[in-house]
Amino acid sequence: MDLVTGFFSPDSMFSSWGLNFFPILGTATEAHPPVEAESTMVLLGILLSLIAIFVASKAGGEFANWLGFPPVLGELLGGVIIGVSALNLVVFDSSHSVIISILEKTAGLSPDAASATFKAQSEVLEILSELGVIILLFEIGLESNIEQLLAVGIQAFVVASLGVVVPFVAGTAGLIIIFHVPVIPAVFAGAALTATSIGITSRVLSEIGCLSTQEGQIILGAAVIDDVLGILILAVVASLAKTGEIDVTNIIYLIISATVFIVGAIVLGKFFNGTFVALASQFKTRGRVVVPALILAFTLAYIGGAIHLEAILGAFAAGLVLDETEPGRELEELIKPIADVIVPVFFVAVGAKTNLGVLNPAVPENREGLIIATFLIVVAIVGKIAAGWGVFGLDNPNRLGIGVGMIPRGEVGLVFAAVGSASGALSPALDVAIILMVIITTFLAPPLLRIVFKTEVPPPLSETT
Amino acid sequence: MDLVTGFFSPDSMFSSWGLNFFPILGTATEAHPPVEAESTMVLLGILLSLIAIFVASKAGGEFANWLGFPPVLGELLGGVIIGVSALNLVVFDSSHSVIISILEKTAGLSPDAASATFKAQSEVLEILSELGVIILLFEIGLESNIEQLLAVGIQAFVVASLGVVVPFVAGTAGLIIIFHVPVIPAVFAGAALTATSIGITSRVLSEIGCLSTQEGQIILGAAVIDDVLGILILAVVASLAKTGEIDVTNIIYLIISATVFIVGAIVLGKFFNGTFVALASQFKTRGRVVVPALILAFTLAYIGGAIHLEAILGAFAAGLVLDETEPGRELEELIKPIADVIVPVFFVAVGAKTNLGVLNPAVPENREGLIIATFLIVVAIVGKIAAGWGVFGLDNPNRLGIGVGMIPRGEVGLVFAAVGSASGALSPALDVAIILMVIITTFLAPPLLRIVFKTEVPPPLSETT
Repeated sequence: MDLVTGFFSPDSMFSSWGLNFFPILGTATEAHPPVEAESTMVLLGILLSLIAIFVASKAGGEFANWLGFPPVLGELLGGVIIGVSALNLVVFDSSHSVIISILEKTAGLSPDAASATFKAQSEVLEILSELGVIILLFEIGLESNIEQLLAVGIQAFVVASLGVVVPFVAGTAGLIIIFHVPVIPAVFAGAALTATSIGITSRVLSEIGCLSTQEGQIILGAAVIDDVLGILILAVVASLAKTGEIDVTNIIYLIISATVFIVGAIVLGKFFNGTFVALASQFKTRGRVVVPALILAFTLAYIGGAIHLEAILGAFAAGLVLDETEPGRELEELIKPIADVIVPVFFVAVGAKTNLGVLNPAVPENREGLIIATFLIVVAIVGKIAAGWGVFGLDNPNRLGIGVGMIPRGEVGLVFAAVGSASGALSPALDVAIILMVIITTFLAPPLLRIVFKTEVPPPLSETT
Repeated sequence: MDLVTGFFSPDSMFSSWGLNFFPILGTATEAHPPVEAESTMVLLGILLSLIAIFVASKAGGEFANWLGFPPVLGELLGGVIIGVSALNLVVFDSSHSVIISILEKTAGLSPDAASATFKAQSEVLEILSELGVIILLFEIGLESNIEQLLAVGIQAFVVASLGVVVPFVAGTAGLIIIFHVPVIPAVFAGAALTATSIGITSRVLSEIGCLSTQEGQIILGAAVIDDVLGILILAVVASLAKTGEIDVTNIIYLIISATVFIVGAIVLGKFFNGTFVALASQFKTRGRVVVPALILAFTLAYIGGAIHLEAILGAFAAGLVLDETEPGRELEELIKPIADVIVPVFFVAVGAKTNLGVLNPAVPENREGLIIATFLIVVAIVGKIAAGWGVFGLDNPNRLGIGVGMIPRGEVGLVFAAVGSASGALSPALDVAIILMVIITTFLAPPLLRIVFKTEVPPPLSETT
């Protein structure tokens, strides 16, 4: 057995070919109830989850598109339907996973192994979803042009700064003055209003064909910058909540590493791009273009994550530095089917995690939250729209469009809520309010964006692969 | 906290944006050593693993191709280099994961969380590898033609049956007569000689441009059939080893479900294909072709796995039933970059799990194994080559080529070794011998196949995406 284990774990062996021999072995399994997940069952659970995710994303996306909304809105809503709020097919920390029940009924999953299987399956889905947003940002980076982005850099920086400062100050002050919330939780909630969700915004801009417009590039640049600012604010707020003082060393470390990373990626861009072109041109076997590109994307994503920035920022930087060379254009085509398969996992997962239960006013704890939430939502929307007026020096920019583009807070706000809750700083009502703010801004932004950019042209058919 | 958890698990929240706030939260984490894996660290570990896998597969594949060998051989060898035999970068059940050390040194992974992170990361890699072989078989199914395959069905069935019976009888008898092995372990080892590795064989055939030849289709058909026969034999042998008698009900269940599944997939093929074409033609948003196709592939893969056949057989059936329609041809192009990214995970993982330590004759336990292994390898090769002579009614078929195409046992043999070991039927020496037989046949087949099919043409450039 040890020798086998040295070569192949028995667990992985069963799984590698999708076999499930435990039912055949029968009583041997029953005698020793497994605490470990059976790899075959995890695979089957992932297959079922992916089927549910693909059906939800396609049905939702097509329906939204038919109604004239951006498809991503439909993917999010499809996620809500198969998630914790309704069908419980794709859930991340509930004991009511319908997928596990299906596995028990149709594939012979033993109830003993159910919880371990669910845990392993959730971990895999979570990683697939994260790989999805990494590929999304890589693709967005490929679609973007570094010169164009740097050209609007100052505008993006002003918009980002305004879009961080206005909602942060207005939110924090309003909570203290109007709702008599203590300072630390108010600061937490204010901080949760700062960072735009790059994933949702960039996908919608891409879908309505506005990503490469001046406004689209400002939004994208500002979203990247306010993400970095948001990370700095969270570091400050978290250390404030924990020790009552600010961990200056950590903040300086974050600022330096973020700067070095972003400047480094841009400066080394020509080198990365040259290496990619050389490899892709030399290679002769399958994957000659897409594999070197993903090595670069994952390397920068790893560095971004390792220095406590974000993996998605690294993936975006990788896409950005790959130029419009011949293999670069080939790559843009090749990355599309990959993105088409993995990106919906991210959006559907965001929807699936959305618990509409917090909207129920019949639950007493939700009521105070609903009132505070209304305030936070107004600040979140008005604050970002105000930031749009920070654009200067351009000929008649769509300021409203830029502001609206910054509205979705996506999961970034939820990270704040989670860190705040974990540190004990947030009351349940404030917690619900932040979550509601995130839900509403996320779901409101896609249709609003389409309206303010008044796109008459349907998305080009070449993109509908 | 409960409300946050209802919406987003804090764990998944940190991860969703690749953030790692635990270093910021500092002592809070230290006070409660985490037993759970940090999702960010799992993601970073997966990114590093994928980088290692991509570098190994590309370097190995290009090198093998340059030397005139099939690229998949290089991917396997690349896997050996980064796996448990050498660099310990991609390992599945060792405590010497270099990736974990890198995470500790560069990303601040706490030693407390190392083992949970490693476990979660291994589970994810295992599933990615399994999704890889599922996509591979789906692609092979797409490249195959169902009429062509059914046309050589009888030949394939004869080749498969001979290729199962000859090595099984010769192996079992030889072990009993020459090596005085008891009956049950001899039967186990004999059974391990039966099933061809579809993944390796089909990839090599595709790479050398022989998949759509008559010989290629016979090999593919026979590999599918002997896989099903292998599952039946394993069920028989496992119940024999466990209770001393054969579980007839289970065997009948397996035979019926396998037949219903295969016949059902073929009969319903026109319906599946029609639905796919209708959906792909109606859909207007991104992923309109590839997502419906993968829904079909994963559905049949799930059914194949759930009825205790194999997930890969379902994926193959799905590819087979999708015809050469307009969206079908588009699909063949779209599935390539997806396969280029995910399939190498499977081949590199197979290589990474290969422990060359069992080849070391300085270890006393290996010596007896090496002698028995020599016998098993001869039987494994001669038995399948003999099966090639079972082809009839064709004009001058490449009988040697067909036999050689059936040689690689891949992981199927390892499943037998694992089940045998787990049931206590196999001695360590026999265990080593089976593993060696699998290693040698797997690594020998790709170069041999290229030789016996004497391909002068390089693989078409259109495939080298």
